[in-house]
Amino acid sequence: MTGCVALVGAGPGDPGLITVRGLELLRRCDAVVHDRLVATELVAEAPGEALRIGRGPLDQDEINHLLVRLARSGLDVVRLKGGDPFLFGRGGEEALALVEAGIAFEVVPGVSSLAAVPAAAGIPVTHRGVSSQVTIVNGHGPLDYASLAAAPGTLVAFMGLGRLDELAAGLIEHGRDASTPTAVIASGTHPEQRVVVAPLARIAEAAEDIDPPALVVIGEVVSLAETLGGVLSAVAA
Amino acid sequence: MTGCVALVGAGPGDPGLITVRGLELLRRCDAVVHDRLVATELVAEAPGEALRIGRGPLDQDEINHLLVRLARSGLDVVRLKGGDPFLFGRGGEEALALVEAGIAFEVVPGVSSLAAVPAAAGIPVTHRGVSSQVTIVNGHGPLDYASLAAAPGTLVAFMGLGRLDELAAGLIEHGRDASTPTAVIASGTHPEQRVVVAPLARIAEAAEDIDPPALVVIGEVVSLAETLGGVLSAVAA
Repeated sequence: MTGCVALVGAGPGDPGLITVRGLELLRRCDAVVHDRLVATELVAEAPGEALRIGRGPLDQDEINHLLVRLARSGLDVVRLKGGDPFLFGRGGEEALALVEAGIAFEVVPGVSSLAAVPAAAGIPVTHRGVSSQVTIVNGHGPLDYASLAAAPGTLVAFMGLGRLDELAAGLIEHGRDASTPTAVIASGTHPEQRVVVAPLARIAEAAEDIDPPALVVIGEVVSLAETLGGVLSAVAA
Repeated sequence: MTGCVALVGAGPGDPGLITVRGLELLRRCDAVVHDRLVATELVAEAPGEALRIGRGPLDQDEINHLLVRLARSGLDVVRLKGGDPFLFGRGGEEALALVEAGIAFEVVPGVSSLAAVPAAAGIPVTHRGVSSQVTIVNGHGPLDYASLAAAPGTLVAFMGLGRLDELAAGLIEHGRDASTPTAVIASGTHPEQRVVVAPLARIAEAAEDIDPPALVVIGEVVSLAETLGGVLSAVAA
């Protein structure tokens, strides 16, 4: 009999931030295929006899084939992905491959880094009177600086650390205020989380020694970290 | 002794989508203060002797005062909010009130409707080659149609049903293609979920008999619902 596949969001890092439904499926699966950044505590939640397959160097097509092959050999598979499967998670591609192969599947959304990682640094991505709009970009994708600079509210860049210099310069060149408060949050929600806050014009320099994975948050909401950031860190520590 | 407050995201509707950490805090709290749309199954998870307080007609200031008062009377409080506390959840205001009052608190992020509700309708808000940018607006807030129409990728409007007509007209007037696939998803992730898909120019008419709460999704990714939507619904049913 063919197995099922669950595309499960593991959340932003802290293993307590997986969903109840996601953990339930993980605890009874026959195989787990997990991203590199998923917490080892979560991979350990799969049954002792379950197959554990790290994504390692597999490309997206190979992952798609692997999921189909595992399900066809009768295994119930959890595909455990960082954050949310459908927000920069490429879950849509895996879902389409499963549809084409006629494999039954379920999507279990996860807590995205989008709001959770800024929250862990004391930054609400929306806040009354400060920001009621959020724009999310992928630092690896094409960026339209003119429309990004014109968008009101908060800008969040996933995987934006590698082009932080270009990102800041592009926004300022197209009219975003050089003094806009900006945060870079590395390893968000993990015990080793690091936060750097600086004006947009100086953030690339300030974050020079930060390593990925990191989220970039640009906008007036970042200034709330001064009041909320220390408190949240103190509680978490 | 003063109690603690946890601002907990309950997720988009389905009670299985709360986080493990959120449920853990809920199961040992002395009081739960919950939004109207939070699943009753979750409120029932609080201990039998815990205070259960529906938000009801309280305004934001009254909620803030209530949280402080409950904590000062020695209770550990869970403030259970729909979706994520910091993405249109006004959690930032509650957090600031707690800081001012010197009350210890923790933020437990939740699965936002942002990606979870479209996912439940078979729509990935990002998809390789289709959309690598997402703009999120609040239908109750001010909208800058010129920059929204110019933004590439997917547009998601929370609480946008009430001004769907204006939203569609404003975007088209500023250059967004009238044929852009658009979805309205009501009661997303709940068993009574309803999905309406139509071109942007006709969505207001098509969604005429849909009641809030509903999420509006505008962009080419919506066309993936044709392939993925039926499958996901079939699995959920």
